[in-house]
Amino acid sequence: MRERSYSGAWAPPHIRPVFHLTGRMLLALAAAMLLPAGIDALTGDPDWRAFLIGSGITFACAAALTRATRCRLSGGLTLRQAFLLTPVAWTTIALFGAIPLYISDYSQLRDSFTNAFFESVSGLTTTGATVIVGLDDAPQGILLWRALLQWLGGIGIIGVAISILPALGVGGMQLFRTESSDRSEKVMPRVREIATGIVLIYVALTVACGLAYWLVAMTPFEALAHALSTVSTAGFSTSDSSMARWDSAALHWIATLFMFSGALPFVLYLRLFQGQREALRDSQVWFLVGLLAAVIVIVAAWLTLTGRHSAADALRLAAFNVVSVVTTTGYATADYTLWGNLMIGLFFGLMFVGGCTGSTSGGMKIFRFQVMIRMLESQFLRLLYPRGVFPRVYAGRLLPDDVIGSVVVFFSLYFVCYSTLTVAMMAFDLDFLTSASAAVAALSNVGPGLGPIIGPAGNFAALPDASKWLLCFGMLLGRLELFTVLILFFPQFWRG
Amino acid sequence: MRERSYSGAWAPPHIRPVFHLTGRMLLALAAAMLLPAGIDALTGDPDWRAFLIGSGITFACAAALTRATRCRLSGGLTLRQAFLLTPVAWTTIALFGAIPLYISDYSQLRDSFTNAFFESVSGLTTTGATVIVGLDDAPQGILLWRALLQWLGGIGIIGVAISILPALGVGGMQLFRTESSDRSEKVMPRVREIATGIVLIYVALTVACGLAYWLVAMTPFEALAHALSTVSTAGFSTSDSSMARWDSAALHWIATLFMFSGALPFVLYLRLFQGQREALRDSQVWFLVGLLAAVIVIVAAWLTLTGRHSAADALRLAAFNVVSVVTTTGYATADYTLWGNLMIGLFFGLMFVGGCTGSTSGGMKIFRFQVMIRMLESQFLRLLYPRGVFPRVYAGRLLPDDVIGSVVVFFSLYFVCYSTLTVAMMAFDLDFLTSASAAVAALSNVGPGLGPIIGPAGNFAALPDASKWLLCFGMLLGRLELFTVLILFFPQFWRG
Repeated sequence: MRERSYSGAWAPPHIRPVFHLTGRMLLALAAAMLLPAGIDALTGDPDWRAFLIGSGITFACAAALTRATRCRLSGGLTLRQAFLLTPVAWTTIALFGAIPLYISDYSQLRDSFTNAFFESVSGLTTTGATVIVGLDDAPQGILLWRALLQWLGGIGIIGVAISILPALGVGGMQLFRTESSDRSEKVMPRVREIATGIVLIYVALTVACGLAYWLVAMTPFEALAHALSTVSTAGFSTSDSSMARWDSAALHWIATLFMFSGALPFVLYLRLFQGQREALRDSQVWFLVGLLAAVIVIVAAWLTLTGRHSAADALRLAAFNVVSVVTTTGYATADYTLWGNLMIGLFFGLMFVGGCTGSTSGGMKIFRFQVMIRMLESQFLRLLYPRGVFPRVYAGRLLPDDVIGSVVVFFSLYFVCYSTLTVAMMAFDLDFLTSASAAVAALSNVGPGLGPIIGPAGNFAALPDASKWLLCFGMLLGRLELFTVLILFFPQFWRG
Repeated sequence: MRERSYSGAWAPPHIRPVFHLTGRMLLALAAAMLLPAGIDALTGDPDWRAFLIGSGITFACAAALTRATRCRLSGGLTLRQAFLLTPVAWTTIALFGAIPLYISDYSQLRDSFTNAFFESVSGLTTTGATVIVGLDDAPQGILLWRALLQWLGGIGIIGVAISILPALGVGGMQLFRTESSDRSEKVMPRVREIATGIVLIYVALTVACGLAYWLVAMTPFEALAHALSTVSTAGFSTSDSSMARWDSAALHWIATLFMFSGALPFVLYLRLFQGQREALRDSQVWFLVGLLAAVIVIVAAWLTLTGRHSAADALRLAAFNVVSVVTTTGYATADYTLWGNLMIGLFFGLMFVGGCTGSTSGGMKIFRFQVMIRMLESQFLRLLYPRGVFPRVYAGRLLPDDVIGSVVVFFSLYFVCYSTLTVAMMAFDLDFLTSASAAVAALSNVGPGLGPIIGPAGNFAALPDASKWLLCFGMLLGRLELFTVLILFFPQFWRG
């Protein structure tokens, strides 16, 4: 983008669009803060001031930022701008999202910016790990803000996965390029084209989920807060016991359904709505369904055969908690760490999986496992027939070599990040299970880890402050699919 | 290979060479059993009978097998035969190697074929995990046999890594093809060409190591047993306390040196011996040296700064135990699981690394990490410059795409095997650290795991029998570089 003169713009022109877009997002964040302010004003909680002040600060900064970086955006973003935008926007929004928490009257958060920021990052990345003990008695404004951050983070990541990552070619996401986005090197945000449709579907799912929750067991406020964090597969609850707080089988099945709905590619809904019935043949979706079914049967059988639960309860508990972990939501209706070591191992493994790409789920994503399986197959065939040619097909299309390479490298990089994060957590003298599960819970945006401290019945409050910052980095790293964050540490990025 | 008529040969012709070669190896094994028989006869231990009978059984079976499968080997092996040979030979030898242990008078092994087989597999794969409690009082024949199995396994795997794996193109090993082995589809065992040289070097290193041990601290028998399991980076000791039994700094430094020597590519020694000084520029070796130096400094600094040891002791302890784990030997001079969680995490990570290819070390091997780093670099560059071409160079040569693909798939497959093995171990209700470390200790052929049961101060005796068989599979899987074993589970292997 050539330099142009805009009155009042002072930032270096090549980073202007990045900060301008970030500023616009902050404007939306400032507006969103008025909701918890309103709730607190209605319920008479003094925190309405914190949210109002937070909204004011955010609005002022956002206005200054957008003004200072005014530029024409119609030309789209360059590759580097698009790379820079994702981590800059995500980090900035998380920082501002933490402000009302930090200046609130709520003792769990106001004492520590670390805790406020952790909660904000955990929200925005739809992770759902919490540092709050005593959610049941927390002020409604705080609870709503946490849920709202998750909901905004959920729709945000769908936007990134649809418009930015495919164009950047991150971790095999070039597979989801559409013809229009493939033509030029400029990353044209395709969000607008389909944004309205996706947002409407997201809102509709949230409303449906909230109504169902309300009809079955919850108060309107609980239903709202949980609907926001269910469809975004995020997992913040209004109770320390998470969904186990409500002793309603119907509620748990409804939550299972809507967590699953959040893990599907949102473009799928749009295509179905447009009458494209062949969208139902999406191989990612059926792989996810098959995987979930298989694991749920195993877990339910285990719970029944070990005499822990009746068949019906076992099925409900298995379905809820398996879907919660695989979709990276992180709700719990049971402390599955008490189901024996096999289940700990199984749930640990499930934390890596994640949902479909273009959904609100974190994790490594189903399509990457499918590509990996194709790659492994062809490798074994090549060993047997060194002169053979083995076309690798995915979803009816030939897999280009660069997609396979990106996916396989993504796999390796995921394990490198996971291992590094685990060892780094152990440097705080945390035990192996806590460290390893915290690492993957952050990286995959699941939320709760395993073990007595951060397990589904625990929380992250007791961890050392520095380790919380580390996990914040891990959450952002995983949410933005590794490459978009790590590339900033690559010297070549900043050259030329 | 066309069918030929050999009198007395009855096995199907296409598998004859596989079993014929296995039979020949068994003949060598039968001969090796006479050594512990001799030692036991000298020391008056009744186990001389067990070894003599074991030798007789092995000899009889080997003779019958070689006769039944007589064939001309000069034509070399087909790809499938070479793939079949490695797991068949390794498993068969381990089975026969277990016979004298099982029929011995030694109470730790004679009661359980599981234990005898575990010890034999652990020996032959140069893993060094033991089920024996009370090694200090174990009969010398048993101790020698364990050490001999490791020594034979060590030279065996060098042979496989030099002659078979490059031709098969397993996990990027095609990088180490020489011109002569690349020309035809037939896998011509190149062992013979350079076998004599390698064996001489292996023997010379063992003798040097044993003499040094003897001069410094050990009895001749102890020196022999440890020399056999040091140069093979295997790790069986004659004491429950491993090398901590001898309170001699000199001994520990000597062991460190010879463990390191076993982790270098043995072809390197041959080339140096032939006066090729450019062999010293081997990038694998320098990468390994750099890695070891860096980690040793970190660990020594940690031990000093946390007030655990004086600087000199810290350096010795760090060097010994880090080299022991990275070279996948598995000796210990300290229970490093007591050095704090950071060190547990670090040692856990080190268990994946391994030494150079063409050495006796297990693990993922240094060159694969180097290739991975090149691959990651080029992936990041490609993200920044989508139209750029980034040649990936390794050791001065352009890395072919199929090598990179194989290496990256090897990485992913390693983690898949590791995770599966971990969850399978947890099915026996073993805790996470024990399960995960047992999985990688087996797969990387390190030996001891982490945690209170199987840590450097513990052993594998208390594990459930079924889990021992699982670990035996893991040890063979890792030792034979995954693909050679896993391909047997691939239906296409058995077709046509």
